[in-house]
Amino acid sequence: MINFSINKNLFLQALNTTKRAISLKNAIPILSTVKIDVTNEGITLIGSNGQISIENFISIKNENAGLLVTSSGSILLEATFFINVVSSLPDVTLDFKEIEQKQIVLTSGKSEITLKGKDADQYPRIQEISASSPLVLETSVLKNIINETAFAASTQESRPILTGVHFVLTENKNLKTVATDSHRMSQKKIVLEKNGDNFDVVIPSRSLREFSAVFTDDIETVEIYFTNNQLLFRSENISFYTRLLEGNYPDTDRLIPTEFTSVVTFDNHNLRYAMERARLLSNATQNGTVKLEIINDVVSAHVNSPEVGRVNEEIDTESISGQDLTISFNPTYLIDSLKAINSEKVTISFISAVRPFTVVPNEDTENFIQLITPVRTN
Amino acid sequence: MINFSINKNLFLQALNTTKRAISLKNAIPILSTVKIDVTNEGITLIGSNGQISIENFISIKNENAGLLVTSSGSILLEATFFINVVSSLPDVTLDFKEIEQKQIVLTSGKSEITLKGKDADQYPRIQEISASSPLVLETSVLKNIINETAFAASTQESRPILTGVHFVLTENKNLKTVATDSHRMSQKKIVLEKNGDNFDVVIPSRSLREFSAVFTDDIETVEIYFTNNQLLFRSENISFYTRLLEGNYPDTDRLIPTEFTSVVTFDNHNLRYAMERARLLSNATQNGTVKLEIINDVVSAHVNSPEVGRVNEEIDTESISGQDLTISFNPTYLIDSLKAINSEKVTISFISAVRPFTVVPNEDTENFIQLITPVRTN
Repeated sequence: MINFSINKNLFLQALNTTKRAISLKNAIPILSTVKIDVTNEGITLIGSNGQISIENFISIKNENAGLLVTSSGSILLEATFFINVVSSLPDVTLDFKEIEQKQIVLTSGKSEITLKGKDADQYPRIQEISASSPLVLETSVLKNIINETAFAASTQESRPILTGVHFVLTENKNLKTVATDSHRMSQKKIVLEKNGDNFDVVIPSRSLREFSAVFTDDIETVEIYFTNNQLLFRSENISFYTRLLEGNYPDTDRLIPTEFTSVVTFDNHNLRYAMERARLLSNATQNGTVKLEIINDVVSAHVNSPEVGRVNEEIDTESISGQDLTISFNPTYLIDSLKAINSEKVTISFISAVRPFTVVPNEDTENFIQLITPVRTN
Repeated sequence: MINFSINKNLFLQALNTTKRAISLKNAIPILSTVKIDVTNEGITLIGSNGQISIENFISIKNENAGLLVTSSGSILLEATFFINVVSSLPDVTLDFKEIEQKQIVLTSGKSEITLKGKDADQYPRIQEISASSPLVLETSVLKNIINETAFAASTQESRPILTGVHFVLTENKNLKTVATDSHRMSQKKIVLEKNGDNFDVVIPSRSLREFSAVFTDDIETVEIYFTNNQLLFRSENISFYTRLLEGNYPDTDRLIPTEFTSVVTFDNHNLRYAMERARLLSNATQNGTVKLEIINDVVSAHVNSPEVGRVNEEIDTESISGQDLTISFNPTYLIDSLKAINSEKVTISFISAVRPFTVVPNEDTENFIQLITPVRTN
């Protein structure tokens, strides 16, 4: 029966990381528990919602953990409740001792709390991924890619494949990532420093956002392993599994235009705040759009809500070329797009009032492109 | 028609203060607007939910406001929407200009936003309180009193009078404030530095909490005016009106015991965290109580939840006297009580397992007393 003592704060941090895979309202009740596996090497905390699974290992060699294992075993505990109890303990150290009938006793300072656990055999097996040669990426690089694309994925289940981000590796080093909800698209390309085996997978955008939360900035690199229907992100102590989406991702390359009639460069923040003002009023209009006008090299934004009022605003430009144009679109798409761009200036290129326009940063122009589809008005 | 210019940030701050009186879901739709009264002396922003009304004055003499009034008038604007629009404006200054048909044009930088307003005549009159001699209190003193009592008021409308805090001034200087929800009671007494006219009123605890939010710490003193059914808190720029509760407040003096069988002094934080641990498990029990045992001068806390587990904990004491005792109560009441006490040590005095016990700080022992009613178990 399990018996160990550990630093409370480090244990709590590991529990909270693991909890990111655990959802309170799961169709499978046992998945609301955290699984605690104790061996002579350390403790593994396991959480899963069926889509994502996280295994978090605390080694006896980790000096900050102050981990002393005197007896090994496995047990399941209600995750949220257990974490609340651990965080309420008075002392910096806690003793965790299993007693009869799957009960555990937590002792910390003068406090003694007995909790009812469940048999670890009830927990589903997490599919193991055989250790083939992984792709190795800097965590910060992968998190940037996620930041630049995942927001553009669909949140609607009507076309499930669009709820994911398409990751394609070709020529062993060219990584292309694309997300689209069919109204806007974001594509980021990078060239890997280390070669890897080619792949073509669609990763749920929700899993990617959780990945970004779980893999903190102190984790420098991440190994990525693939199987047919699963993917594993792994660092020294954390294994993050996610299911992949099945089906063919649409061909997005053909959507990207190459010839334009009007090209305007803006200050990113200037344009974003103008769009945020426009959105306040466009939210109260029927089609929810802002109208952008380019007339004689002056760009202005207009919204007219019969109920609430109107916005008219000239937007400063950094440079402008091409023809006059009037185009309407949902300002939220442009705001999201500008938020994802980490560059002071952005260039927007238009073809016509009914064709998608592109948004690119003024740095890294070649590799990061977004498309936004306009809305036909009148 | 109104025309003024003003510093955006100061205007926004004043709007947000006024908005505290405005509730989005009001049975009277016009109360979702803010009323803007502009005169040659300055601007008054008015908000009300029918229970609380706030008038916030910005003087042309306030240098931080940069207020320039060129034409006066009154108008109503949807409060939340208007505040969002103002906060989105690009420049530090905004121009506010009324045009035809109750429309206003906000100009800031190159942004021009037109909003539809409503006729100020539609706004209900706020009852004026004739300036008799007010009670003058330090804001911090009043906020402390609120902090120490208002939490103990009832949140249930079954006995409306108990949702208020009873304020009684006797002998022109002895102020007693009491709140109770019939399970616990909190009473604070102070002696005023300046004499005032005696009064006996019940102020809604919700109004008092809003008062604490509206009267920031930079407002040193507050004047208090009474009428039959209303009360006005006033500072230089803010008038905060609240309705009073009607009815007789129960006699609470007779509830306060004076003789005890067991008296224990605790460290405030120690006891509070022990109760928070107990509450984690008592929430999962049928009667939601913690059992406190005093045996041979040792105090311990116990909760036993058949479903979840149990807590057993010895609680350090600073001093202890009297008889052994076992008493059960809702730990939330003791946690609330300890949070309201700004003293490192607290003394709890018991009579028996079925009589209310008192909680007093070890400083200011005479003037601040709380009562908690135990729960009879088995």
